[in-house]
Amino acid sequence: MEKIAEQKSFGGLHQRYRHVSETVHCEMVFAVYLPPAAKEGNACPVLYWLSGLTCTDENFMQKAGAHRMAAELGLIIVAPDTSPRGKEVPGDPDGAWDFGHGAGFYLNATQEPWRTHYQMHDYVVQELPTLIETKLPFSGRRGISGHSMGGHGALVAALRHPARYQSISAFAPISNPMQCPWGEKAFRRYLGNNRSSWRQWDACELMAQSSANKPGDRVPILIDQGEADNFLQEQLKPEALEQAAAKHGYPLTLRRQPGYDHSYYFIASFIDDHLRYHAACLGNAD
Amino acid sequence: MEKIAEQKSFGGLHQRYRHVSETVHCEMVFAVYLPPAAKEGNACPVLYWLSGLTCTDENFMQKAGAHRMAAELGLIIVAPDTSPRGKEVPGDPDGAWDFGHGAGFYLNATQEPWRTHYQMHDYVVQELPTLIETKLPFSGRRGISGHSMGGHGALVAALRHPARYQSISAFAPISNPMQCPWGEKAFRRYLGNNRSSWRQWDACELMAQSSANKPGDRVPILIDQGEADNFLQEQLKPEALEQAAAKHGYPLTLRRQPGYDHSYYFIASFIDDHLRYHAACLGNAD
Repeated sequence: MEKIAEQKSFGGLHQRYRHVSETVHCEMVFAVYLPPAAKEGNACPVLYWLSGLTCTDENFMQKAGAHRMAAELGLIIVAPDTSPRGKEVPGDPDGAWDFGHGAGFYLNATQEPWRTHYQMHDYVVQELPTLIETKLPFSGRRGISGHSMGGHGALVAALRHPARYQSISAFAPISNPMQCPWGEKAFRRYLGNNRSSWRQWDACELMAQSSANKPGDRVPILIDQGEADNFLQEQLKPEALEQAAAKHGYPLTLRRQPGYDHSYYFIASFIDDHLRYHAACLGNAD
Repeated sequence: MEKIAEQKSFGGLHQRYRHVSETVHCEMVFAVYLPPAAKEGNACPVLYWLSGLTCTDENFMQKAGAHRMAAELGLIIVAPDTSPRGKEVPGDPDGAWDFGHGAGFYLNATQEPWRTHYQMHDYVVQELPTLIETKLPFSGRRGISGHSMGGHGALVAALRHPARYQSISAFAPISNPMQCPWGEKAFRRYLGNNRSSWRQWDACELMAQSSANKPGDRVPILIDQGEADNFLQEQLKPEALEQAAAKHGYPLTLRRQPGYDHSYYFIASFIDDHLRYHAACLGNAD
């Protein structure tokens, strides 16, 4: 694990690290924001942020305007890349931007030629926390959030591993990937044609599977969705998640924000609310 | 003037416009942030932001995290591009990033082949305000700020036209361009070899020329400078500006910020202070 950049930001530190991942079998880069409290060695919770299609570790750190409030709340933020990368990692055969490099969909691929490298779920949920949390002043409490494909990734990670995450939120997540073009294209290639195997990677399906009898399995979810989002109807389908939550009694707050689109201007406009929500769940609120 | 993008941000609007400039003789793109107050038609002051080398109208809007406080304070922000662009606009003969496209230095070139297009000072100080302010709910009060090359541009614009700007600030400005490699390269090409003609484009020289007898000529300047900035010693030279201000009694607040570099993480960390400063000078403070 090699530090490749470090910059002071809001009294804390923005850092980038490179390491060779045993899970995705290539070199990976991720970013960390250390609030002043962590810089001084105080134990802080960690919020994992999963970005959307085409992003790297940099988009959120540069564009979300999250450092100010993370500094104030004492939240560490960790932002991984959105897929394995490199010459040895196969990408989209047609060079499309919605599959392959920058589009790992935070799942564990089972199909050739993807399965060697596209194990992003295990990378984000297991390898990266194991790698980084021992090196940080980590309080032991963990949240997860993300945008679009990364919103899907965050919901799936937390719904599959409810004991690992004490807070969940998302911005404009791909809520029902089995039933939208982005998700179907990715799942068919990464997971194969058997649609029943897709269900473990779809937030709506996982919500149905989560147990109301174990309180720890039902971490409340906060979602913001812009109503002027170009991808809302065809790709994101928040109404499917809303219906699944209602049907299965899952605690979900879905806020529709009039006039906002799919961009980082939308994320920046509401990131403070999400950071406060995570800090409150994670025990580091004001 | 054609609107090419519009996105909601913090209750206001981020917009991008394209127009054919009569001053720089090519198509130009600029960005505007309209706070909610302006969206609702209330007269607001305008802050012009000039970006640094290699930037476009987008860097500040995406990375500075300025919309939140501008929305709160009711400040309109206008961010022009950093140079003329296009196939018809000559760039650096060697393809360097510190001259030509993305590096107009906010001056009026006198030399061939640059002088037809590189009239960025007149574009920023005259044409753009004339174009945009009549279309905005503009209060009549104007501020200017910028980063690095754009900090130089902001200081020079305001020192040359003190009646036009009621507030001035800068982040890590090129403070004494006549005496640094970036400035000398640009000035030699844009302005020719006669160094005496360079003096009207150097903030230290202009500070000496400003008159203490006309209070309106001496708008106080706020500058933040990171102490871990890689360009500090060779290119930025804030001490020269500090000496000029002290010698000529110019009101300057120069804050040295330990540990901060030249990036937008530095700008974001202190942009709220600058926006509050401008709003206070421009009469739209809390």
